[in-house]
Amino acid sequence: MHVAILGATGYSGNVLYNLLSQHPNVETINLYGHEGGKSSRFLDNEVPAFFSAHIAILPFDPKEIMANNDLLFCATPAGITKDLMEPFISADFPVIDLSGDFRLTDPATYEKWYHKEAAPVDLLEKAVYGLAEFPEEKAGKYIANPGCYATATLLGLAPLVIKHMIQKDSIIVDAKSGVSGSGRKLSSSSQYNFINENVWLYKMNKHQHIPEIMQKLNEWDSHIPAIQFSTTLIPVTRGIMATIYLKPLKKYTNEQLLECFHQFYDDAPFIRFRENDLPTIKEVTGSNFCDIGINYNPITNTITIVSVIDNLMKGAAGQAIQNFNILCSLEPTSGLPQLPVFP
Amino acid sequence: MHVAILGATGYSGNVLYNLLSQHPNVETINLYGHEGGKSSRFLDNEVPAFFSAHIAILPFDPKEIMANNDLLFCATPAGITKDLMEPFISADFPVIDLSGDFRLTDPATYEKWYHKEAAPVDLLEKAVYGLAEFPEEKAGKYIANPGCYATATLLGLAPLVIKHMIQKDSIIVDAKSGVSGSGRKLSSSSQYNFINENVWLYKMNKHQHIPEIMQKLNEWDSHIPAIQFSTTLIPVTRGIMATIYLKPLKKYTNEQLLECFHQFYDDAPFIRFRENDLPTIKEVTGSNFCDIGINYNPITNTITIVSVIDNLMKGAAGQAIQNFNILCSLEPTSGLPQLPVFP
Amino acid sequence: MHVAILGATGYSGNVLYNLLSQHPNVETINLYGHEGGKSSRFLDNEVPAFFSAHIAILPFDPKEIMANNDLLFCATPAGITKDLMEPFISADFPVIDLSGDFRLTDPATYEKWYHKEAAPVDLLEKAVYGLAEFPEEKAGKYIANPGCYATATLLGLAPLVIKHMIQKDSIIVDAKSGVSGSGRKLSSSSQYNFINENVWLYKMNKHQHIPEIMQKLNEWDSHIPAIQFSTTLIPVTRGIMATIYLKPLKKYTNEQLLECFHQFYDDAPFIRFRENDLPTIKEVTGSNFCDIGINYNPITNTITIVSVIDNLMKGAAGQAIQNFNILCSLEPTSGLPQLPVFP
Amino acid sequence: MHVAILGATGYSGNVLYNLLSQHPNVETINLYGHEGGKSSRFLDNEVPAFFSAHIAILPFDPKEIMANNDLLFCATPAGITKDLMEPFISADFPVIDLSGDFRLTDPATYEKWYHKEAAPVDLLEKAVYGLAEFPEEKAGKYIANPGCYATATLLGLAPLVIKHMIQKDSIIVDAKSGVSGSGRKLSSSSQYNFINENVWLYKMNKHQHIPEIMQKLNEWDSHIPAIQFSTTLIPVTRGIMATIYLKPLKKYTNEQLLECFHQFYDDAPFIRFRENDLPTIKEVTGSNFCDIGINYNPITNTITIVSVIDNLMKGAAGQAIQNFNILCSLEPTSGLPQLPVFP
Repeated sequence: MHVAILGATGYSGNVLYNLLSQHPNVETINLYGHEGGKSSRFLDNEVPAFFSAHIAILPFDPKEIMANNDLLFCATPAGITKDLMEPFISADFPVIDLSGDFRLTDPATYEKWYHKEAAPVDLLEKAVYGLAEFPEEKAGKYIANPGCYATATLLGLAPLVIKHMIQKDSIIVDAKSGVSGSGRKLSSSSQYNFINENVWLYKMNKHQHIPEIMQKLNEWDSHIPAIQFSTTLIPVTRGIMATIYLKPLKKYTNEQLLECFHQFYDDAPFIRFRENDLPTIKEVTGSNFCDIGINYNPITNTITIVSVIDNLMKGAAGQAIQNFNILCSLEPTSGLPQLPVFP
Repeated sequence: MHVAILGATGYSGNVLYNLLSQHPNVETINLYGHEGGKSSRFLDNEVPAFFSAHIAILPFDPKEIMANNDLLFCATPAGITKDLMEPFISADFPVIDLSGDFRLTDPATYEKWYHKEAAPVDLLEKAVYGLAEFPEEKAGKYIANPGCYATATLLGLAPLVIKHMIQKDSIIVDAKSGVSGSGRKLSSSSQYNFINENVWLYKMNKHQHIPEIMQKLNEWDSHIPAIQFSTTLIPVTRGIMATIYLKPLKKYTNEQLLECFHQFYDDAPFIRFRENDLPTIKEVTGSNFCDIGINYNPITNTITIVSVIDNLMKGAAGQAIQNFNILCSLEPTSGLPQLPVFP
Repeated sequence: MHVAILGATGYSGNVLYNLLSQHPNVETINLYGHEGGKSSRFLDNEVPAFFSAHIAILPFDPKEIMANNDLLFCATPAGITKDLMEPFISADFPVIDLSGDFRLTDPATYEKWYHKEAAPVDLLEKAVYGLAEFPEEKAGKYIANPGCYATATLLGLAPLVIKHMIQKDSIIVDAKSGVSGSGRKLSSSSQYNFINENVWLYKMNKHQHIPEIMQKLNEWDSHIPAIQFSTTLIPVTRGIMATIYLKPLKKYTNEQLLECFHQFYDDAPFIRFRENDLPTIKEVTGSNFCDIGINYNPITNTITIVSVIDNLMKGAAGQAIQNFNILCSLEPTSGLPQLPVFP
Repeated sequence: MHVAILGATGYSGNVLYNLLSQHPNVETINLYGHEGGKSSRFLDNEVPAFFSAHIAILPFDPKEIMANNDLLFCATPAGITKDLMEPFISADFPVIDLSGDFRLTDPATYEKWYHKEAAPVDLLEKAVYGLAEFPEEKAGKYIANPGCYATATLLGLAPLVIKHMIQKDSIIVDAKSGVSGSGRKLSSSSQYNFINENVWLYKMNKHQHIPEIMQKLNEWDSHIPAIQFSTTLIPVTRGIMATIYLKPLKKYTNEQLLECFHQFYDDAPFIRFRENDLPTIKEVTGSNFCDIGINYNPITNTITIVSVIDNLMKGAAGQAIQNFNILCSLEPTSGLPQLPVFP
């Protein structure tokens, strides 16, 4: 196949390019940049680590992209993507979009959380939210790849929520994330001297992944009213740990709880449900795995679920490849490493 | 004054020695080691950073210690301390004990959480739990210096708990700690390659600071049944952030919540209540401050309290100095740095 | 092919297993442990990150290994390997040995630097030092895979040394290494609180990679008398930077220097000679690349060469795969990632 | 005393404020900002860690500063300082200047290395280079506080250079520095994702501390022609290690080498010459110490000197306090911590 990447110079785009260049079903990768007018850009110039990938970054041209490729990966930032996608959606051209612009079906919700104008409703309706293990029933060729926090949180919550085993107003998520989650752009809060030896709870009640989590949770159980969701920046480059606290609907035995997770995840190639321990983020770094562990505390009647991912893999580019495999009916694990980079 | 340190080669002991050597009311510091028989130990040999402190570590001898010192700081590990303290307690000699051995009044609770035999009840009864901002009514010269997690958690919870403003079964604490909290001993979970680029939720429902938190909470409000308390290891050397989630008893205005914290902490020299933002751990590193911020989410009816300390300062040696100042009627801030080490 | 790994639970063994499990020419991987008697060991139990690799670790049995495999990768530590290899060498069975036990041809040199008894001379003579880009003329099936420091240093030095363009007594190497280089074993110098926020020059003039560097340099130029070689531990998990200082034999133009490197490395798939900048270690992490940059200072008449590798890849398991490909006449880049893990 | 700080919001200024606020001879500290016109700036607003220091930052006004203070600490950046200092120098008002603007006596050299216009020669002539352990003979009240790399390097080199014990063209310095050295300003090379898990040799042969090192070396020995000097960024916030390689003039015994260092440093309160080991940077962090160790390799006839400092203490604010104590005839160690922050 011939695939295009729009935005290969950002972190997700970097990882995407790396994965696609080793994907057995991908023959050529064409790179495009959304900034018009610039010419003669090359991947290796922008990303020294990719010194051996002297690949031109072509100017953005929807017709040219559709003529020369079978599918587009879009790794441009939220707020920019929405203005570029109309030609592809109108042509029903396959797109896997890593930005947040087409994840929310309700434009007003988008505008509240992203503080930007939303894409038109008729375009939003065409997008399918691509949480790979829990596909939407709606078919479609425009896949809105989930956010990193949303992926870790939803995969941790799914079994008990779908089976209606929890008290609906009891969900509290304390999520921790590495710094690559906020991308390549300069900011005072991504400076080494700020992050190193530090921990910071940021965007209190304001993180833009909250509404996509709620949207998916309500697809599973429309009576969940809200979740308390905190995002804490930790001094690592890659990785998310979502620590989820909730109350069970009634007394379950430990076996019932484990059984519920096994039922959903025993056949999922990228979910490793760990019955006997709680996973650490380093155990999934560099892989597309989401590792999940649970614990029940009878004294407080609280279930703790720990869900870890590599935010740039399962939380971005890895899941995008997974969605690519699904959309194109390829082997589900094709082109994805089968083990983490360890140590 | 002449003061003794038992156990100056551990991390808390290191910091204690450093602080005492700059304390204006301390004239001499004598060091003792609890391992009998070894002689000719020197601080600089065991701690290369203290190269310029060529101080002998004398063998443990209660009579000698009491004869030559006005007060003893005890920085030996839990499980060892309890067997050494009888002579001092019997003599009513002033001791500030940084271990966990005399914090819990109930021996059975100690044995359940520490998996060791408890100190005799008559000795335990003499100890005073020294959360410096919330002294016990009981007088006494044996101060059990609180644990690091307990300090951050209790100081964050105190105002709303004491004022009975919360739903009593709603407390969930997601605490994050740096690696120095587990001391100087070798273990696979304190290896660089395990900690670096990693986050680990450990001792689920089993951390030995849980019972001392409950003991103090119940002193303030005997109807609090339990807390959900998680400890997560993060890749920093120093620092604790306790992220506390709870539900208010009724609807409070933001002003009422802020007012409650101001009332307790405006006169506390080591608590910095930050009305407008949430603190980060690096903002207190190297200082004796506990910085606290709060947030109320009306959608989930949840209050989030963020409390940060340097685990070796306010969480250990710094609070020990604070207790020393209180016990000896010195200036409360004497010998304690007035600002963090920053950046 | 069917391949065996002896010692898959160490760091090099972990990476080796990971690479081999994705190698297109490898059909089965059998794991063996050198500790006799233990049974029922499994890879996932020892390495939680490999949770999804529930592979038995079989007891060491040379006959069984040779009967069921086409080649053995040996990732056991120096000092242990030498006592296990006789059956394989005698049978002329292909082995790629990641330890240091068969790198030095002179037993006395081994004993001086390793402080252990050397392997018998007749076995040592069979081993071939496998610096992949500079193969020995001698043929053989027992490949002694080079050490990590040696690889970075030798690849940086090779062009100018082989072309006799340097002053022979002028080489000074200031090498910096991440912590994974010293393996998985517990030690006080691999504790997080020691490494974090620290830099340590260790084993001054005593590092055991010095003699293998000298042996190879003298193969290229027998008049190089010695090198000054320092190893400094830095707070990263993976990566080596060898900063090499030397004096040119005479005045060369910049073009002559660049040309020399291009001549050796333009066709080497895993060397990226970077004409315009100096590489950083993160630009090769997770890959088998050695990136090299050079600088000439006319004021001091000093050439600086910067050579970076991932110590567990090009410095261990990656180069082992490269040697495997060479020995078995496979595609040279087979089974090796073509780009670093970035960011 | 009443002291002024110009530029308290930068890193050096932060540390300076922290030290001065605990200095026993300092009664008041007045803060000034060089950006004209801004009013109502406060230290706590700019530096959240200094939440408890609600101190106004007054507009820059030389007359006002001289009227209300006994001495000025200047912590503004190079290039800005030079345009502000004329009134103070003309009035012979005591200044300790942490910038690089008045360290070089030759304006042409400044302009070559700093790429900025130099201060007028008549002002430069008034400045005294304040390497505290090696004061200039020239008296003066305008102290140019040395750069961080220069301090570590010069203190390591001084004994052997002053005693003319080295081959004059043999000095190679491989210096490693933490990230705080480049200050608080945003840049892509101070982003966490660039620095973390990385090492970068930057400004090859171009670092602006090279000329001040040469100037001081030539004061000690006018025949030293040049030094090879590399600066490598390492993933720590604070700390410099200068690894210095050089050749002795003739064969010395180990005792002669040690004796030379002892002679210079046994009475220096902030130099800790470590006869038996090589220091690590963490052993001086937070202190004003420079720890020095040496090693002689008879095989290569090379002496290695390792010199470590905290770049913000001995390399900036700490040495500024030391110079303040000297200039004002206070106790030499006054206001400076006597031990590092450890662990």
